[in-house]
Amino acid sequence: MKNTFGNNITVTLFGESHMDSIGAVLDGIPAGIKIDTDFIKNQLSKRRPHKNISTSRVEIDEFDIISGVYNDFTTGSPICIIIKNGDKNSNDYNELESKPRPSHADYSAFCKYGKYGVLPGGGHFSGRITAPLVAVGAIAISVLNGMGIKIASHLKRIGNIEDDDFFDFEDNINKLNSLDFPVINESIGLKMQEKIKSIKADNDSIGGIVETLVLGMPSGVGEPWFDSVESLLSHALFSIPSIKAVEFGLGFGFADLTGFDANDSFEIIDGKVLTKTNNNGGINGGITNGNPLMFRVAVKPTPSIQKEQDTVDLDKMSNCKLTIKGRHDPCIAHRVGVVIDSVAAITLLDLLAEKYGTEGIKNAIRTDREDIKA
Amino acid sequence: MKNTFGNNITVTLFGESHMDSIGAVLDGIPAGIKIDTDFIKNQLSKRRPHKNISTSRVEIDEFDIISGVYNDFTTGSPICIIIKNGDKNSNDYNELESKPRPSHADYSAFCKYGKYGVLPGGGHFSGRITAPLVAVGAIAISVLNGMGIKIASHLKRIGNIEDDDFFDFEDNINKLNSLDFPVINESIGLKMQEKIKSIKADNDSIGGIVETLVLGMPSGVGEPWFDSVESLLSHALFSIPSIKAVEFGLGFGFADLTGFDANDSFEIIDGKVLTKTNNNGGINGGITNGNPLMFRVAVKPTPSIQKEQDTVDLDKMSNCKLTIKGRHDPCIAHRVGVVIDSVAAITLLDLLAEKYGTEGIKNAIRTDREDIKA
Amino acid sequence: MKNTFGNNITVTLFGESHMDSIGAVLDGIPAGIKIDTDFIKNQLSKRRPHKNISTSRVEIDEFDIISGVYNDFTTGSPICIIIKNGDKNSNDYNELESKPRPSHADYSAFCKYGKYGVLPGGGHFSGRITAPLVAVGAIAISVLNGMGIKIASHLKRIGNIEDDDFFDFEDNINKLNSLDFPVINESIGLKMQEKIKSIKADNDSIGGIVETLVLGMPSGVGEPWFDSVESLLSHALFSIPSIKAVEFGLGFGFADLTGFDANDSFEIIDGKVLTKTNNNGGINGGITNGNPLMFRVAVKPTPSIQKEQDTVDLDKMSNCKLTIKGRHDPCIAHRVGVVIDSVAAITLLDLLAEKYGTEGIKNAIRTDREDIKA
Amino acid sequence: MKNTFGNNITVTLFGESHMDSIGAVLDGIPAGIKIDTDFIKNQLSKRRPHKNISTSRVEIDEFDIISGVYNDFTTGSPICIIIKNGDKNSNDYNELESKPRPSHADYSAFCKYGKYGVLPGGGHFSGRITAPLVAVGAIAISVLNGMGIKIASHLKRIGNIEDDDFFDFEDNINKLNSLDFPVINESIGLKMQEKIKSIKADNDSIGGIVETLVLGMPSGVGEPWFDSVESLLSHALFSIPSIKAVEFGLGFGFADLTGFDANDSFEIIDGKVLTKTNNNGGINGGITNGNPLMFRVAVKPTPSIQKEQDTVDLDKMSNCKLTIKGRHDPCIAHRVGVVIDSVAAITLLDLLAEKYGTEGIKNAIRTDREDIKA
Repeated sequence: MKNTFGNNITVTLFGESHMDSIGAVLDGIPAGIKIDTDFIKNQLSKRRPHKNISTSRVEIDEFDIISGVYNDFTTGSPICIIIKNGDKNSNDYNELESKPRPSHADYSAFCKYGKYGVLPGGGHFSGRITAPLVAVGAIAISVLNGMGIKIASHLKRIGNIEDDDFFDFEDNINKLNSLDFPVINESIGLKMQEKIKSIKADNDSIGGIVETLVLGMPSGVGEPWFDSVESLLSHALFSIPSIKAVEFGLGFGFADLTGFDANDSFEIIDGKVLTKTNNNGGINGGITNGNPLMFRVAVKPTPSIQKEQDTVDLDKMSNCKLTIKGRHDPCIAHRVGVVIDSVAAITLLDLLAEKYGTEGIKNAIRTDREDIKA
Repeated sequence: MKNTFGNNITVTLFGESHMDSIGAVLDGIPAGIKIDTDFIKNQLSKRRPHKNISTSRVEIDEFDIISGVYNDFTTGSPICIIIKNGDKNSNDYNELESKPRPSHADYSAFCKYGKYGVLPGGGHFSGRITAPLVAVGAIAISVLNGMGIKIASHLKRIGNIEDDDFFDFEDNINKLNSLDFPVINESIGLKMQEKIKSIKADNDSIGGIVETLVLGMPSGVGEPWFDSVESLLSHALFSIPSIKAVEFGLGFGFADLTGFDANDSFEIIDGKVLTKTNNNGGINGGITNGNPLMFRVAVKPTPSIQKEQDTVDLDKMSNCKLTIKGRHDPCIAHRVGVVIDSVAAITLLDLLAEKYGTEGIKNAIRTDREDIKA
Repeated sequence: MKNTFGNNITVTLFGESHMDSIGAVLDGIPAGIKIDTDFIKNQLSKRRPHKNISTSRVEIDEFDIISGVYNDFTTGSPICIIIKNGDKNSNDYNELESKPRPSHADYSAFCKYGKYGVLPGGGHFSGRITAPLVAVGAIAISVLNGMGIKIASHLKRIGNIEDDDFFDFEDNINKLNSLDFPVINESIGLKMQEKIKSIKADNDSIGGIVETLVLGMPSGVGEPWFDSVESLLSHALFSIPSIKAVEFGLGFGFADLTGFDANDSFEIIDGKVLTKTNNNGGINGGITNGNPLMFRVAVKPTPSIQKEQDTVDLDKMSNCKLTIKGRHDPCIAHRVGVVIDSVAAITLLDLLAEKYGTEGIKNAIRTDREDIKA
Repeated sequence: MKNTFGNNITVTLFGESHMDSIGAVLDGIPAGIKIDTDFIKNQLSKRRPHKNISTSRVEIDEFDIISGVYNDFTTGSPICIIIKNGDKNSNDYNELESKPRPSHADYSAFCKYGKYGVLPGGGHFSGRITAPLVAVGAIAISVLNGMGIKIASHLKRIGNIEDDDFFDFEDNINKLNSLDFPVINESIGLKMQEKIKSIKADNDSIGGIVETLVLGMPSGVGEPWFDSVESLLSHALFSIPSIKAVEFGLGFGFADLTGFDANDSFEIIDGKVLTKTNNNGGINGGITNGNPLMFRVAVKPTPSIQKEQDTVDLDKMSNCKLTIKGRHDPCIAHRVGVVIDSVAAITLLDLLAEKYGTEGIKNAIRTDREDIKA
């Protein structure tokens, strides 16, 4: 099950960066869901490089839904979306066949596959493969939205510049989903963009932290032990290239706290059981408790930098220098939020399917959502 | 696949804290591996409560291997280990049926299962279920050891007291595996124990960070995307109750670094490709690169504290106070390392099985390891 | 996933014939289902040897539900049932360590596991392991019954003696479930028993065919391709030792028919879409069509016979003779029906869970079934 | 996991008969395997309609390998093959939207998906989807061939005309793989073709039996219980549309035999353990025993016939007549053999991967097979 993930709702990925096309298969979506191709386009545009602060590789991301959708409605069969690879300069990669880029997948790919798995543009390891993941993820997000569940991510931190915390959840989510550079405080966002530009000017790259909020998840979803919400979400999140840390609620912040300070006390407000704080990020015992889900991931600085670095020549088995050519991102933290939303949505929809079944998911779509319900 | 995890080497968990017994099934271990029951005992003793700084519930953890082992050798069939539940005071839990403990699984279990899933001692949510996980994990660790792979965890931090970093890997691992309270710097360990005692005296609890080192993993193991080493390890780690954060290598530390500072340059030493640093914790592109694996988890403070807390009465749907009875741990960070080692070992063995097959795993056991090889 | 089967509702098997105990774990059953231990006992008694026509090994099959059930109701956690191995004569098996029994698993087990996997009584290969499968299967059957779905199997054929066809489905099922020797026509059943006795007297064994009927399955369950109802049922059925053929509806009878003669025409009766015939056994395109499910399996003659046979001595690598000692069944076709019902029920419940979710399954239990609904 | 099958080597299917294209993803194939596109073409041509005795729909089956293969060698990443849908007449299907074809998937698809899943040409239920399955299956067959394992199927029976049994295994396999109409006795094959023509002239269709032989499978592959060779093969075989029965070795023939007559006695020939007969079709206890694998499937008559049939109008909920238009096969038994070989090869390769790992599979390819080994 290397490139397939999920139980009832599954996603399968395929494709290499510099071959003809890449794609993903989303399986298990109930029949009769209306597909909004504009929403898919919009999600893909959020993942696309941003002028000035991203790679200059232009990815048009024209996608074809080649199965599973007929006359704009899902058929219940697997949905395959294909995206053509356009603007690619494989020549930039000739040198890399024998000289692995530090902190990139080149060397470990070589250890696993030999020279056959070390391909121009990173092949199957390329962040480019997240494009079809975002395309099928958009469908999962649509279905969640129809069920009253919303999701958005913001750049919590780039270098040492930090965005504000979520404060007005519903509003924050709506606003973030409309932004190309998703921050809560836009003036901080401008500083982050300046930071990225200066890092780019220095031929270097920078890491960051992305924080995600999910509103509206019903309580009682997930399992103790191996299918805990944290287990499944982290499984999906760590699949995204460059993500090296995942924390839920206070996460590492729990280490220094006492139970008395960290525990989320219960209280009843308007006849509903709520917690006074949400330090556990909406999950206890692996199961949702009705609070918003909140998690953060760390994104490492893009390993492909244009400064000279030390590496080795695997053919000659000697030390050497490497200056990476090609067009690369000085930061991907601002592009990865939509990928995070996508894999999280697929994972949460799968967990909901366990509880409610594909039938239940379809029935849970609010009847006023004519945009997605047949 | 709620309580079963893995592809070729799988583990299945079952049992409730206050019923007759709990257990685990480990499947896929090749036939002809010698089982060292003393090692299993020893691993279980590491998980057991420590005098003064743990719960006073005495868990003898007498285990029975009821299948899969015959005359001390594995048969190739699933290995089921059962542990009797001994010293339990279910009466301590009467009040909890309707009053969920803050930050514990009680309320989310109630949301999922209704009153049927809210059981004395936390039922299937209890940390007690990690005992059989450690027992079968000991077998996985034995097999890894036979292949030349070693694993150990230390308490990196309890409250704000921090242990030294790993420095002499082989030595550190050997020493940690012999300690009840696993720290690299034992004088820091004494301070940590004092901290726990004072927290206990205050009827409170405290969180911590555990750091794990794996030596000897071959390169080229794992997959890009959904079966990345990070994905599978985090999936397993987040299954352990109270773990709320997982990071590999620098983890969240990557956020503030530039690519130039963070990248692990390659160099050749003694004819081997190595990296000058190991910021990626031994994994690039989801695949091992031959370096030691290094990861850290955050353990939240035990939610069951004896201070009075705010909660609700689910029967009366009213706010109320709760003072938890029963015997609870003021800290589990010092007990959880062996659980982490166990699930990590099962996960890594499963990944090795993908590459080498069950046949290859058996063959990879060093011929001088007569203690585990037939 | 060697000894675990299923997606949402899973079963895990473990145990060896001549060790202390054997067991099974059933996971995914919703919380709040009442467990009827008498029904489990009754199902186990159907699997047990029958006086005169079975092995003289007395299996009391006392079972312990060691997890997942509390005060007679399911908790939502995995249900583990353990059965002690009682009356066993391992000495009968000494010779077999090096002399594989023809058509038994001994030799292929030796090829896979070496001598470590060739155990007294057939070890994990023993039909005895079907006892815990029947025990947990009884729970699945209970849940199906609560949803209005009924299942039963009859001995369609033993040697060349054939039972009548199903004619009054509801009645047939009720009657078969009350019989120890499950036939529709009891006078034919007596002839079959005479046949078995005479085969036993001749130190030989005999094969048979078992036919199963499932009433009440909703339409629209199952998937095209890999999760077709036929695919999943056959997967489960071929797991049962000695089953070598599975057919649905007319099965091999389709080979000689034309489409015109074989097709099941539709008609509307009382406002319902029905078919005039049920040649497809209730399944089209891998999905249930609302008709009764009907399938047949072939059971090979028990390979352990007491007549002298040709085999080889694997130690000496020479040809030799073998006369099998121990107590063996002259026929298992009359004992295997309840095993078939059990695995079929688990598989169908899993398919229903995909459609309706665990929540939907619980809700589908008829409110008048107070015996199983909380 | 609806449209994905396998553990280490997996296949994912997608596509609908009358949409733009259909495809399959094969994952887990080791890197560095040479891909022979001519062999894929040749396998596809065997599946294609045969002049006079098949549908007149012309399927060119031009395929694109859009991922996983670079410069003719596998990269280790998932291999996606896409086939364009060419010659399609969706108008032929207008009437069928509301009038389900007897014994076809139309009605059960309607029950599961509503009108959204009832598509021209049968949509995802169409036998057309087997084309990409054959394409990726050809890669699996190549790898098996490289390991010294051969596979072929023949038409054992069409209507009541029966082909000879396998007699000279190696020769039979080689010859069958070169034939468009795969029979052992070609004069019988001519009679079968006459039969199909006369059935076609009668606007009817006919069923058949296909028998498959696998030579060279190593012993000790497969598992007792749920991953038995029979379980996994039958799971894959019943995924193929129109297959309603599967038997291994003597299959249903076991029912009338005694153990003494049915058992496969062992003997030593040239220092090897062999059996005198192969009634069990090469599998005991779910595990290969070193003998050739042999199994048979029943193929039902194509349900789409041009004779008038009784059906219902789901819009009007009334009985009605139906005369199916479109171009359909009078028999698919002669086209399905290559599909059977394909799914069997994928399944067996997956089982081999469990034992030997992806590494072991690559190493097992004979060094003289330069055509497929790097």
